[in-house]
Amino acid sequence: MTRQPLPFLALAVLLAAAPISAAAQESVLTRPAEMQAMAADASRYPLFAAELARVRAEVDAMIRAGIDVPMPRDPGGGITHEQHKRNYKAIQGAGMLFRITGERRYADFARDMLLAYADLYPRLGRHPAASNQVPGRLFWQSLNDSVWLVHSIQGYDAIRGTLSAADRRRIDDDVFRRAARFLSDESPQVFNRIHNHATWANAGVGMTGYVIGDRELVEKALLGLDRSGSAGFLRQLDLLFSPDGYYAEGPYYQRYALQPFVVFAQAIETNDPQRRIFAYRDGVILKAVRAAVQMTYQGHFFPINDAMPDKSLRTEELYQGVAIAYAQTQDPSLLSVAEWQGRTVLTPQGLAVARDLAAGRARPFDFRSLLLRDGPNGDQGALAILRSGSGANDQVLVAKNTSQGMGHGHFDKLGWLLYDNGNAIVTDYGAARFLNIEAKQGGRYLPENDSWASQTVAHNTLVVNETSHFGGELAPAERHAPRQLAFRGEGDTQFSTAEMVGAYDGVRFRRSLVQIRIDGNRSPLVLDLLKVDGERPAQYDLPLHYAGHIIEVGFPLQSNVAARPVLGQGHGYQHLWVDATGTPSANNGFVTWINDGRFYTYRTLPTAGSQLILAESGANDPNFNLRREPAVIHRMTGTTDAAFVGLLEPHGAYDPSAETTVESRSRVTALRHSRSGNADVVEIDLIGGRTLVVAISDDPSETARHSITVAGRRHSWRGHVGRFDLNRTQTN
Amino acid sequence: MTRQPLPFLALAVLLAAAPISAAAQESVLTRPAEMQAMAADASRYPLFAAELARVRAEVDAMIRAGIDVPMPRDPGGGITHEQHKRNYKAIQGAGMLFRITGERRYADFARDMLLAYADLYPRLGRHPAASNQVPGRLFWQSLNDSVWLVHSIQGYDAIRGTLSAADRRRIDDDVFRRAARFLSDESPQVFNRIHNHATWANAGVGMTGYVIGDRELVEKALLGLDRSGSAGFLRQLDLLFSPDGYYAEGPYYQRYALQPFVVFAQAIETNDPQRRIFAYRDGVILKAVRAAVQMTYQGHFFPINDAMPDKSLRTEELYQGVAIAYAQTQDPSLLSVAEWQGRTVLTPQGLAVARDLAAGRARPFDFRSLLLRDGPNGDQGALAILRSGSGANDQVLVAKNTSQGMGHGHFDKLGWLLYDNGNAIVTDYGAARFLNIEAKQGGRYLPENDSWASQTVAHNTLVVNETSHFGGELAPAERHAPRQLAFRGEGDTQFSTAEMVGAYDGVRFRRSLVQIRIDGNRSPLVLDLLKVDGERPAQYDLPLHYAGHIIEVGFPLQSNVAARPVLGQGHGYQHLWVDATGTPSANNGFVTWINDGRFYTYRTLPTAGSQLILAESGANDPNFNLRREPAVIHRMTGTTDAAFVGLLEPHGAYDPSAETTVESRSRVTALRHSRSGNADVVEIDLIGGRTLVVAISDDPSETARHSITVAGRRHSWRGHVGRFDLNRTQTN
Repeated sequence: MTRQPLPFLALAVLLAAAPISAAAQESVLTRPAEMQAMAADASRYPLFAAELARVRAEVDAMIRAGIDVPMPRDPGGGITHEQHKRNYKAIQGAGMLFRITGERRYADFARDMLLAYADLYPRLGRHPAASNQVPGRLFWQSLNDSVWLVHSIQGYDAIRGTLSAADRRRIDDDVFRRAARFLSDESPQVFNRIHNHATWANAGVGMTGYVIGDRELVEKALLGLDRSGSAGFLRQLDLLFSPDGYYAEGPYYQRYALQPFVVFAQAIETNDPQRRIFAYRDGVILKAVRAAVQMTYQGHFFPINDAMPDKSLRTEELYQGVAIAYAQTQDPSLLSVAEWQGRTVLTPQGLAVARDLAAGRARPFDFRSLLLRDGPNGDQGALAILRSGSGANDQVLVAKNTSQGMGHGHFDKLGWLLYDNGNAIVTDYGAARFLNIEAKQGGRYLPENDSWASQTVAHNTLVVNETSHFGGELAPAERHAPRQLAFRGEGDTQFSTAEMVGAYDGVRFRRSLVQIRIDGNRSPLVLDLLKVDGERPAQYDLPLHYAGHIIEVGFPLQSNVAARPVLGQGHGYQHLWVDATGTPSANNGFVTWINDGRFYTYRTLPTAGSQLILAESGANDPNFNLRREPAVIHRMTGTTDAAFVGLLEPHGAYDPSAETTVESRSRVTALRHSRSGNADVVEIDLIGGRTLVVAISDDPSETARHSITVAGRRHSWRGHVGRFDLNRTQTN
Repeated sequence: MTRQPLPFLALAVLLAAAPISAAAQESVLTRPAEMQAMAADASRYPLFAAELARVRAEVDAMIRAGIDVPMPRDPGGGITHEQHKRNYKAIQGAGMLFRITGERRYADFARDMLLAYADLYPRLGRHPAASNQVPGRLFWQSLNDSVWLVHSIQGYDAIRGTLSAADRRRIDDDVFRRAARFLSDESPQVFNRIHNHATWANAGVGMTGYVIGDRELVEKALLGLDRSGSAGFLRQLDLLFSPDGYYAEGPYYQRYALQPFVVFAQAIETNDPQRRIFAYRDGVILKAVRAAVQMTYQGHFFPINDAMPDKSLRTEELYQGVAIAYAQTQDPSLLSVAEWQGRTVLTPQGLAVARDLAAGRARPFDFRSLLLRDGPNGDQGALAILRSGSGANDQVLVAKNTSQGMGHGHFDKLGWLLYDNGNAIVTDYGAARFLNIEAKQGGRYLPENDSWASQTVAHNTLVVNETSHFGGELAPAERHAPRQLAFRGEGDTQFSTAEMVGAYDGVRFRRSLVQIRIDGNRSPLVLDLLKVDGERPAQYDLPLHYAGHIIEVGFPLQSNVAARPVLGQGHGYQHLWVDATGTPSANNGFVTWINDGRFYTYRTLPTAGSQLILAESGANDPNFNLRREPAVIHRMTGTTDAAFVGLLEPHGAYDPSAETTVESRSRVTALRHSRSGNADVVEIDLIGGRTLVVAISDDPSETARHSITVAGRRHSWRGHVGRFDLNRTQTN
């Protein structure tokens, strides 16, 4: 038996039942039938009802305040900037409120505001607060104009059918057609780029094309200004995401970029379903939504590259992303993301999320270890994520083996971060910026973003001769990506190994990060082996930026107690105060700190002449633009080849309520490194007589067999990393 | 009609119904009938059932681990220290579990552990890790021995009736009688002090007296070793608390001291009801419990004097305190405290809390502005608490006008702190200590507690000539308390004025802190007027320690960007790094910082030669014992009399999710100070044309009439502080 085309039938029924004016009121970006179904159920499901109430309160307040469409003047965070932001949200909100509640005043308000924009827009030139970004008309950078368009066109779509022909023509011509022209033909340097700024422009222009019935705009949006396909939305989908849905600029901009991708895709799906946009490139848009969620800890995005560390899944972009992806997939694990977000969007997709959440269909999101390859073909390095479990407090290790990621990329090839017990432990500074805070340079990226935040020494990776990777230059950085050599994301010994060539002339380095689970539920140990292969003697620095208060330092310190010098002259070194230095011996090269009631010991294996430097960010910072955060730097001088062996060990607990403390001191009694055959062998002695042996073969293959000899005994394994837990009291 | 003595009757019925062995199993600290009633209802109410499950899991784990009563060896945080702590909790828990569950194994476990102590105790001498505190036998300080006794005797009381005569005699004689003798007759220097260490000793010894039937011990506990009443529990109630229930050492030790007070009081009430101990001194014990709760923000105690800032109402002491106070008063607002705590105690009082909470009887605790007088007679200064509301995020200003508070007191007369929007904004360092963390000097107070945390410059009050109050000496500090001159805790203009004489030779200073509510729900402004009356030219420093990241500094800075000097040589100055200095002019003497999405501007009125110093703690700290926290110091040099006029203004909002920022800049356009008649007049101009005028008369009386002239107009008021809101556009 063949199935009836039920949706079609239902649509016909609904259209028949709709008021006589329905045809004139039709929306384009959302199917009228879905719009009406949403209106009917709007107050049935708590999450949607709450969003409806929230938007209604916001728009009602805007209506009470009266229409304010000021002449643009201020940079980010300023009064006119914030007002135009409020306005596009109000236009979008009022449009949806009109459709949901049927209250005419919402349509009137959106119309009147758009008419005010029709008065203003033709008078605008280059924004007076324009600076180094591409200037907009309503905002200091054209990016914000695109965002304005993406939001406003959705509100306009909802009311356009209710307008008089004259009003419709004025708003079509003097607002949206002009804005679309400004952001496309008049801004080719943005519109034709392969970059998130272009995605926003493409989306705004393309949606405008659908709404005002201009297919040429749609085609330019999809295929670039010359409609050849060499630029535009589809090309961006080809080039900006990897086959695993990783966005080249990193998680922070992946989040930001998602909104135009998903919102425009939804509009394409509605108006050009034959394009099967959500299946494009093996479903890359939906992969990108899932990848964005995977790149979070406690809902916060890993802050690699330019990123604000307070940015979480609780953002407009992800409310849209989750709703649209859910509508496409009905994947119940996305519902639990929406539940954590506590918000959804006023669209049919948001309604579906609220409805199914209310029906109890949510399942936990599958947070897990995974490798997200980078690059259009997946061969430009990768982001390796190792999780000790799927719980919110489980340990997560992030190995940043990705490509540069364009202008927002930082110079930290093979860097890493660690989360544990709900907190960032090995940290990434993120961006030096106070978003939207006018007193901090209008909320723009600060000079310290270049001089500190993007430099190598601000990260957890190798610095050669106090110079950043690629000399801190973007162009060469874009030409060299790391190679992800090996990855294992399950079992008690997870790992990632990657190699970098080209960051420095004549220096290649390879890093293995191994997450070693012992004793069941404890947080794993992390072993870090970074091997440097140079051509001439150099100074090698390996910084570790951590969060916590120092409890114990294993080696004697020379402390700068009464005057605090800076570490160096440039490449970020000028921003580091030196608290103390020391030269550890074999088994005392450790620092223990406390963070949120748990202790962490970072232990590093010194070689002859190794120096440890305890430092803090914040030097050469007259405007207090930097956070002050500690770092420990392992320095080797005059070495050609080097092996940095580090061990990060979570241990113990301090409970301030119960006033109890357990295991405040490291359980590791010794750390040794040797070569055996073609492998590096690291032995970790624990109190109680156990020794963990981790062997890392030079050969990254998953299948080759290797063997080593430790304490006179032979151990063999298959694959890149072998692990052997010995009991010293038994074996010796 | 006369009422039947119902409790008596019920008791008789219960006793009649009890098993034949009841008489032999009777407990002394808890009435057997109450014990049985508790057992009957133990699983009926969630809070109690959860506590039962928690204690059962803890004790079961201890039983599984086997009895471990080690020879004492370690200081705080060490292995033997923590084991003896676990043991006293297990003895107490096992005793109560036996009574509640009837399971014999709990009684056996407590007995066996106490028999192990009977083996150990007679062999003990002075603790090997004893340091500058009075040494104990089981622990490095005798205080912990007292705490051990208070807990263990409760567990012993619950099982003593089940023991063979031989076991009872051994435990009576070799554990409790010896411990009681050690802590009383053999430790007169502790037992007869007026101090919380003595309270713990008194309580342990007195409860032991009740349990083993030694009235002499009880009398010594109540009246001191010579039983004259010159020392002991009652004398401590007379001298350690003020008439308002404020404990001389401050909130942190008030919390700590409470437990022996309430637990011993409950034992006295049970065994000597004719003493009416809870009515003693107008109910001072119950006042003390309430005062402790009032001295919290978001459940955390104001960290004045030696205090750990992570200490909250979620502690054993307050679980006991709230339960015992509730049982005495049935005050439903204490139930909401228990609800926040999420815990109660395994006693009949804890059962009553759980029962009435389950019945929905909780009412909000009445957090409000209040003055807690200090000193046995209430004339040794006061702690003034000004709250903008009773909500968890409302603003709270704490004026520390209290007496020194003995050895744990800090040298910060007339200091202050501020909480706002859920966070500490104007901060108190608290103690320099890592409680129970062995690597930090065994968890004891660190040297930096003396050299930094207790010094004046580490606080928010006047420092003369870089010397702490009283030269940082305890004896003179104990002789001089501030005078609380005026206080108003309601309305839109709340205030506290106090005066200090004797902190410095020839210098008296008076401080008014005024909480000025404007525009309804906004957080109030805080005006700070500190007037100094000296005899000779001096350097006056007024530090403000704050929490947040600097957003804007109003005046030009000379920054120490490449080498960071320390501020001074001693009295805490050696621990301050100098980031920058500046000499503000009339209207640019401000610093704006951000904390948790809200902006705070601290504005100070410079006089000729005023310097502002931006500093950070952490200099001369080779062991990383200090937290690194910022301060701004207003310095006046070569002045004899001075007036520091400061204004703390919460404003605006930054929302990282929505990426919106409002009012990141101060709304104050000018600040002026003048004298008019016998009053100081402060004018605060706000953007939009409003001026707030606050007039503070020299006369602190509540009733006198005063008047001033501002901008040619006369304003008059009654009482110490007058306030006038002017509209400049109208009046000028």
